Amino acid sequence: MEFDENLFWELFELLRDNKLKELKEELVEINYADIAEFIMLIEDEKAAVKVFRIMPKNISAEVFAYLDSDWQQVIIQSISDKEIAGLMDELFLDDAVDFLEEVPANVVRRVLANTDKETRDTINRFLEYPDNCAGSVMTVEMVELHDRLNVKEAIAHIRATGVDKETIYTCYCIDDSRHLVGTLPLRRLLLSNEDMKIKDIMLDDEMVVSVQALDDQEEVAALAKKYDLLSVPVVDKENRLVGIITIDDIVDIIEEEATEDFEKMASLTPSDDEYLKTGVLSLAKNRIPWLIVLLVTSTFTGYIIDGFENKLAVVAGLTACIPMLMGTGGNSGSQVSTLIIRGLALGEIRTRDYLKVLWKEIRVSLIVGVVLALVNALRMILLRGTFLGSDATNNVVLVVSLAILCVVVVAKVMGCTLPIVAKLLKLDPAMMTGPMISTVVDAVSLLIYFSLANAIIDFGV
Amino acid sequence: MEFDENLFWELFELLRDNKLKELKEELVEINYADIAEFIMLIEDEKAAVKVFRIMPKNISAEVFAYLDSDWQQVIIQSISDKEIAGLMDELFLDDAVDFLEEVPANVVRRVLANTDKETRDTINRFLEYPDNCAGSVMTVEMVELHDRLNVKEAIAHIRATGVDKETIYTCYCIDDSRHLVGTLPLRRLLLSNEDMKIKDIMLDDEMVVSVQALDDQEEVAALAKKYDLLSVPVVDKENRLVGIITIDDIVDIIEEEATEDFEKMASLTPSDDEYLKTGVLSLAKNRIPWLIVLLVTSTFTGYIIDGFENKLAVVAGLTACIPMLMGTGGNSGSQVSTLIIRGLALGEIRTRDYLKVLWKEIRVSLIVGVVLALVNALRMILLRGTFLGSDATNNVVLVVSLAILCVVVVAKVMGCTLPIVAKLLKLDPAMMTGPMISTVVDAVSLLIYFSLANAIIDFGV
Repeated sequence: MEFDENLFWELFELLRDNKLKELKEELVEINYADIAEFIMLIEDEKAAVKVFRIMPKNISAEVFAYLDSDWQQVIIQSISDKEIAGLMDELFLDDAVDFLEEVPANVVRRVLANTDKETRDTINRFLEYPDNCAGSVMTVEMVELHDRLNVKEAIAHIRATGVDKETIYTCYCIDDSRHLVGTLPLRRLLLSNEDMKIKDIMLDDEMVVSVQALDDQEEVAALAKKYDLLSVPVVDKENRLVGIITIDDIVDIIEEEATEDFEKMASLTPSDDEYLKTGVLSLAKNRIPWLIVLLVTSTFTGYIIDGFENKLAVVAGLTACIPMLMGTGGNSGSQVSTLIIRGLALGEIRTRDYLKVLWKEIRVSLIVGVVLALVNALRMILLRGTFLGSDATNNVVLVVSLAILCVVVVAKVMGCTLPIVAKLLKLDPAMMTGPMISTVVDAVSLLIYFSLANAIIDFGV
Repeated sequence: MEFDENLFWELFELLRDNKLKELKEELVEINYADIAEFIMLIEDEKAAVKVFRIMPKNISAEVFAYLDSDWQQVIIQSISDKEIAGLMDELFLDDAVDFLEEVPANVVRRVLANTDKETRDTINRFLEYPDNCAGSVMTVEMVELHDRLNVKEAIAHIRATGVDKETIYTCYCIDDSRHLVGTLPLRRLLLSNEDMKIKDIMLDDEMVVSVQALDDQEEVAALAKKYDLLSVPVVDKENRLVGIITIDDIVDIIEEEATEDFEKMASLTPSDDEYLKTGVLSLAKNRIPWLIVLLVTSTFTGYIIDGFENKLAVVAGLTACIPMLMGTGGNSGSQVSTLIIRGLALGEIRTRDYLKVLWKEIRVSLIVGVVLALVNALRMILLRGTFLGSDATNNVVLVVSLAILCVVVVAKVMGCTLPIVAKLLKLDPAMMTGPMISTVVDAVSLLIYFSLANAIIDFGV
C-alpha cells in the first residue's frame, strides 16, 4: 500500500521507456509525498524534471512542497517562467515562503518576478518576519466566516472557496473590522441546524486561543498541544486575523525545538539546517565555541590536580581512579539535568517544584551513591593484585568509594539545581546546563576526592 | 483570552461563595483544558470534586480527559457508581484506556464494573495491547463509510453519527467485510458533487496508508509526518479496519520518542512516567544500570593510567592535563553522535550516507582540532609560571596540543561511526552510543596522549 521498491521500479521503467502517458496515469494514483520521493530517487536530473512537468499543475505544486530544497532549486532552474508563474499560483503561501527562504537570492528574484503583485507583496512581508516567530511559519489561506452568516450560508461559502484553503477544518470568525471574534470547528458547523447564526454557535471569548505574529513559535506549539488544536490563529496587535498555523507545521516546530535542545545539551550552537546540507565550515563554527569554553574552564580542574600532584605520586591507585570518578560524577549529573531540562521544556516540571525535586534527588542520589560505592569497593578489592592500583591499600579503596558516594550526591543536587536556576534567571536551561554541568561537577569531584584522601590517607610528606 | 490568573480568581470566588449556578455558567464558556487546569489548581479536593460534578455530563467527560492521572483518581474515588457509568459512557475510548492504564487495579475494577459489557470488552482488549504499539494508542470512534454510499448519504451519515466520533475530518471507507478500501478527507467529500459515489471519490490503492495494531507507535508518527495525516488507520492482519490514531495522540508519541532518546543518551533507562510522578526507587532503578556499566568499564582507563603512573610522576603538568583532554574528547564525540542520532531518528540521515558523513567529519574535525590545539598552546604558555603545570616544558605543551588534535579527530570519527554501526546492526543508536561514546573516547584519548608523550618527551626512566 505504501511506496515501496516494486512501485519505484514500475514507475522507473515507464519513465525509462518514455511511456509518459502511462506514467502520468500511475502518478496521479499515489500520494504527493511518494511522488516527491520518486522524483528525488531518480538519479538523472533531466529525467526527474520531466516527471515533474508531466503532472497536472495542481498536483505538481503539492509535490513541489514535499521536495527537498536542493531539488526544488533543480526544478525551478529547469522550467520556464510561465511554468514558474503557474507553480507559484498553485503553491500554498507558507510552502512558497519555506522554499524561498532556502534558495539563493537570484532564484528568489526570478521566482518573484513571475508572481502576481499581490502574492509578491505578501511573500515579501513574510520573508521579513524573523526566524522562529509565528509570522514566519503561518499561512494566509484560511477560511474566514463573517459572524453574521448562518450555517447554510457558511457551508455554501466553504464549498465555494474551500478548495484553495490550507485547511477548512477550523474556520475563523471575524467582524466587520476583521477582528478575530471566534473560532468554529467544521465539525460543529456541520452538525448544527442550518438556520443557526455563526455568532451563536462559534466558540468565543475565553474559548478563542490565538498568538501574535511576533510571538515565539514555541508558544504556538505549546498552545496547540494544550488545547488539542488543528490550527492556531495569528493576529496583529489590534487582534485582527492575519493568518493561521496548521498542525503539520506545528509538528515540525515541536521536532525543531527538540532538536535544538539536543544540540544545546551536546555543547553545540543550535542550527536549523539538516546535517547533510550544512557545510564543513558551518559545522566547525557551531562546535568550536563551547569546546573552547570547556577547554579553558578545565584549567581549574588542572590546577586542582596540579596542587595535589606530589601526593598523587606517592600513593598507588589514586591517579588511576580520577577518570572513573569524574566520569561517574558527569554521568550522574547529566542524568538528572536531562530529566529536569526535558521536564521544564514539556511543562511537566515548574520552577516552583524545586524543593520537591531537590528532596527527591537527595534520596535518589543516596541510594544510587551507596550502590555504586559498594560496586566500586568490590571491583577494587577483586582486582587488587591484578592490575588496578595493584598495591592500593584498604584506605585507598575507602577513599575512592566514599568519594563516589559524595560525588553522586553532589552531582545530582547540582544537576537538578542548575536548570531550574537557569529557568528562574530567564536563561535557556538546555544551553546553560548541558555543557557546563560536567565541568562544574568535574572540579567539585576532584576537590571532594582530594579532601577525603587528605583526611584518611597518611601521605608521609 | 487565555486562561489567566484573573479568570482563575473570578471562578474561585464564585466557588468559595458557593455560587454554583454562576460558576457553571462561566465554566461552559471556557476551554476544556482550562477547566481542567482550574480544577487542578484548587487545593481543596472536595471543592475540586464539587466543580467537576456541577458540569454537564458531556463537558465533564472532556475535562476528565485533560486531568492528570492523580486527579482522575481523586475524582473517581469521590463520585457515585452511577456517575462513573455516565462518565465512561461519554469518554472517548482512547482517553478511558489512557486513564485506566495509570490507576491501581481496584479502581480499574470498580470503573469496569460500571461500564456496559461491550465497552468493557473493548477496553479489556485495549489494555492487553503491549505498551508503545499502535493498538495501545488507537481509538475506535472513527467515521466508517460504506463505499457504496453517495456523497449526500455520506454527509447525512456523518451528521447523524459524527457527534460521538473522535474526529470526522478523515473518513474511512470499508467494503462488506470491513476491509479498509480507501480514505476520504471530509474536505474532499464536502467539496464533491452530491451524487458522486464514495467509491469514485475516495483515495484508494497506493494512496491508503495504514498500520497494523501491533506495529510500533514510532511507525505511526513517521507516516503521519511523511504524509501530513490528521489520523492514521489501524488494521488487523486481514486489512480489516480496527481503529484510528488521531493527531493529538501522534503529537504525544513524537514527544515521547524524543524524550526517550534524551534519556537514553543521558545513560538512563527510558521511562514513560513523568519525573514528578515517579517514585524514588524507580528513579534510582533507571539510573543505576548504566552507571555501574560505565564505572566497571572505566577500569580500563584506570589500567592505562596505572601503567603510565611512574612517568606521569616525573614530568610536571602531564597529569594535570588528563581531565581536560578527556573532557575535550568526550565533548567532541558527543557533539557528533548527537547530530547523527537525531538525524537518523528524523530520517534526515540514512546508513547509506555513512561515507559522506565520515568524509565531512574528517574535515570538520581537522579544523576544530587545529583551532583547539592552538588555543590550548596559548593557554599553557600564558599560564606557565603561574599555576598550570608551572614548570611544564615546551615539549609538554607540544604533546598536549598534538594530543588534542588527534583526540578531536578520533572522537569525531567514532562519534559518527558508532550510531550508524548501531543502526546497521538493528540496535538503538541512542541507547548504544549515548553512554558508551565517552568511555570509549576516554580510553582512546589516554592511549594517544601517552604514546605521544613517550615519543616526544625524554623521561629519563
